[in-house]
Amino acid sequence: MRRRVWEIVEVAHPGDRASRAFDVFILVLIFLNVLAAILGTVGSVEATVGGSLRIFEVLSVAVFTVEYAARLWSCVEDPRFSHPFRGRAAYARRGLLVIDLVAVLPFYLPFLGLDLRSLRVLRLLRVLRIAKIGRYYSSLDLMRRVFVSKREELVLVTALMALLLVLSASVLYFCENPHQPDVFSSIPATMWWSIATLTTVGYGDMYPVTVLGKVFASIIAILGIGMFALPTGILGAGFVDELQRSREEGDVCPLCGRRKL
Amino acid sequence: MRRRVWEIVEVAHPGDRASRAFDVFILVLIFLNVLAAILGTVGSVEATVGGSLRIFEVLSVAVFTVEYAARLWSCVEDPRFSHPFRGRAAYARRGLLVIDLVAVLPFYLPFLGLDLRSLRVLRLLRVLRIAKIGRYYSSLDLMRRVFVSKREELVLVTALMALLLVLSASVLYFCENPHQPDVFSSIPATMWWSIATLTTVGYGDMYPVTVLGKVFASIIAILGIGMFALPTGILGAGFVDELQRSREEGDVCPLCGRRKL
Amino acid sequence: MRRRVWEIVEVAHPGDRASRAFDVFILVLIFLNVLAAILGTVGSVEATVGGSLRIFEVLSVAVFTVEYAARLWSCVEDPRFSHPFRGRAAYARRGLLVIDLVAVLPFYLPFLGLDLRSLRVLRLLRVLRIAKIGRYYSSLDLMRRVFVSKREELVLVTALMALLLVLSASVLYFCENPHQPDVFSSIPATMWWSIATLTTVGYGDMYPVTVLGKVFASIIAILGIGMFALPTGILGAGFVDELQRSREEGDVCPLCGRRKL
Amino acid sequence: MRRRVWEIVEVAHPGDRASRAFDVFILVLIFLNVLAAILGTVGSVEATVGGSLRIFEVLSVAVFTVEYAARLWSCVEDPRFSHPFRGRAAYARRGLLVIDLVAVLPFYLPFLGLDLRSLRVLRLLRVLRIAKIGRYYSSLDLMRRVFVSKREELVLVTALMALLLVLSASVLYFCENPHQPDVFSSIPATMWWSIATLTTVGYGDMYPVTVLGKVFASIIAILGIGMFALPTGILGAGFVDELQRSREEGDVCPLCGRRKL
Repeated sequence: MRRRVWEIVEVAHPGDRASRAFDVFILVLIFLNVLAAILGTVGSVEATVGGSLRIFEVLSVAVFTVEYAARLWSCVEDPRFSHPFRGRAAYARRGLLVIDLVAVLPFYLPFLGLDLRSLRVLRLLRVLRIAKIGRYYSSLDLMRRVFVSKREELVLVTALMALLLVLSASVLYFCENPHQPDVFSSIPATMWWSIATLTTVGYGDMYPVTVLGKVFASIIAILGIGMFALPTGILGAGFVDELQRSREEGDVCPLCGRRKL
Repeated sequence: MRRRVWEIVEVAHPGDRASRAFDVFILVLIFLNVLAAILGTVGSVEATVGGSLRIFEVLSVAVFTVEYAARLWSCVEDPRFSHPFRGRAAYARRGLLVIDLVAVLPFYLPFLGLDLRSLRVLRLLRVLRIAKIGRYYSSLDLMRRVFVSKREELVLVTALMALLLVLSASVLYFCENPHQPDVFSSIPATMWWSIATLTTVGYGDMYPVTVLGKVFASIIAILGIGMFALPTGILGAGFVDELQRSREEGDVCPLCGRRKL
Repeated sequence: MRRRVWEIVEVAHPGDRASRAFDVFILVLIFLNVLAAILGTVGSVEATVGGSLRIFEVLSVAVFTVEYAARLWSCVEDPRFSHPFRGRAAYARRGLLVIDLVAVLPFYLPFLGLDLRSLRVLRLLRVLRIAKIGRYYSSLDLMRRVFVSKREELVLVTALMALLLVLSASVLYFCENPHQPDVFSSIPATMWWSIATLTTVGYGDMYPVTVLGKVFASIIAILGIGMFALPTGILGAGFVDELQRSREEGDVCPLCGRRKL
Repeated sequence: MRRRVWEIVEVAHPGDRASRAFDVFILVLIFLNVLAAILGTVGSVEATVGGSLRIFEVLSVAVFTVEYAARLWSCVEDPRFSHPFRGRAAYARRGLLVIDLVAVLPFYLPFLGLDLRSLRVLRLLRVLRIAKIGRYYSSLDLMRRVFVSKREELVLVTALMALLLVLSASVLYFCENPHQPDVFSSIPATMWWSIATLTTVGYGDMYPVTVLGKVFASIIAILGIGMFALPTGILGAGFVDELQRSREEGDVCPLCGRRKL
């Protein structure tokens, strides 16, 4: 019976109807649970159906808890986690299982005096489990490979952006602070302006008013275009590269060494 | 005569002058009709020439109605829709015909007590018919093929954006709600902020004021750059791929299997 | 002497010092003239050196006028424009010459009762002449070729954007007009909001306040991402294509038909 | 001993522990020093630990000064800088050494009556030294090569943007100045609007209110999309090109001249 439970909670054979029904049920429950958490913050909804939402919350967390326990109990059926203690501990440390735990813990912690109910919406991360199955796997894998192959370039661009962020915030602080001491009150406060400008969001809650500040802000805004152009160019080249690599897979021409199509 | 009507209302032989004149006439009428609907919402225009606009509306809808009836009546000339009832029903269910119906229905529904006149501008969708003819066909087909071949990646990016949208709205709600209860009033209300930030529109009607909120908002704004970089990189690689594929079409090298240029 | 004038005013032999000095002089004069026109709009500058700016304006326009006359007088030296009347007329109709005329006309028109002095800054377009010479020619030609080869796709994207612009303005007008009759006062007025949203500028002078309006605005803002992704992807693929084409120019392999590198 | 100092302050043999420890120490000190300079601008931090921050500032600048002196003293060990005077002068003129000097000078200048303490944060530029070592070198080199190979195209796009900036500011000034003389007060002032629109930042502190101004602003905002599409497309093609070049390095096919993979 433990074997059957394991087959059902984990993705099993394609024809296994019980396993598939279980997956769909849990997935729907996650979506409904997150929807309930989101709608519960709307005053009028809370006032009318708040009680029902809380009952649904209790029921769904009960299901998630049973599911988590069932996974942990049955995982020893997998050869990789066959040891009763070390195997289960190894299984529980895997990314998806940690997310499953994070999804139910906020419900129990208040009883221990710790209110993390605001983390309820993190349950949505459980839908990442869906990524491991089905037809989108190859696309997700392509995107993962592009990110991995361009890892270093993306880290460099992020470092460059951090450098630009600190330098631009400092320059603008020294230009604008004397004229708007309440708005550009410190360099960390000015960083919020830098982020809004470099990402071209531009809320309009902070903007320079001095001529010098506007000149520097203009230069920074134009450099902000590079913040879009660089990662886009890098990822674009990564996608082109991966597509060519997968198309060229196969035997090579004995003459010129190019892989056959 | 029914055959002649069919030839005129559908795109027929390149040399058919009557058919071409009819196409141009309908197209101009669509543009003028939509222009009239748009200008009719301007107070000063409505006050001066509102009567003329309404008369033009009646006349043009009459033409569209006659055209729709003519299409439906004559479509049995096409072997695919030759059956008087099932053929006509099949023809009426096609995308372009549904748009044609949607374009005239808002005019007649008020007589049935249903006011959908606000949908009048949807008539503009009728210009999509133009996409099937003429010189832009190959470009449109290229774009269509790129979208189709990158379908799964684009769906994934949209799903990723939806996930980021819900999570960022939840985090910002819990950071900002205690300090701005009227602005960040609920998670659905905060989603409007998330959209404005992830797309870098940044209207400035909602923005975080707490330090923690600004830190998270900064991270979300930077992740928003990925919302531009990913689809752009994916579509760019798709265009490169399609161009290479069409250039390589032809015979292949007997040795290495590469298509000749 | 007319031949010498022609050699000087048109780009002539690389070693011709007088011609080169003339080009640099005119270019510097254009920049200074535009700078004077720009600074002349600043109240404090106008108050202090306004008289000098106007004198400089008169002097530089005099030089431009003499230059234009010299071009027109000497152009018959070119075999293509050798006819005294038709040749000169053909020369005067060329793009750069029209710009040269537009650059001086605003100065003389007020004497004819037509005040177009606001067009003075269009003189800046004269610097486009610089594009025809020097080291940036091949880069400019690359960009021109990319735009020409992607002409149809870019026209299609522009048409798509126009369609989206009209439809989104109409939808938002019907959502928001009843609640903000002064802001979303008509469909043309709402188009200003559509532009600000689709281009992700987001000034914040207009934004939806109703739930339905925000839902549609969110969809439109996300579609606005495509307004960046499509032209970027198309132009990116165009640049990749042109680079490969120029690299592959040369003889082809007798076996597989690929051009040698 | 001078040789040993030189080995330690410059990046030396991979196994040299003292040199590596020195590098890490200086790097951490730079980060802490910049962090102190940033936090020192926050009123509450300055009020509580301002004294400690100033002591840390003195200590770290002392270390930087000793380090700078040690570099200058020991550099004659390098054959390129072996001359006591000219060699040291040549070494001091190198980019990284100039940054090192700029990093300590603001501390000493006040004693000479020149207050440049606002430049303290420029010390952050010292972290660029990190770019010369370690695993990110090849990625940085790739990005440098892409920028160098696309230098001319990027200069052209910048020139195009400058042209668009001046022209759009002039047009908007003449449209909006009569209606908003305090906001669009001069062409240079309107350039701030142009920058905010062309980069799609859109703070919302300036926006057109006249119909003509909105029409031109819409055209400019749409052209602003090209400001993102062009550099992104150019850099993307540059990355694709560099990747292919490095993949194709190796022997060439004797028949068609293509490099073997």
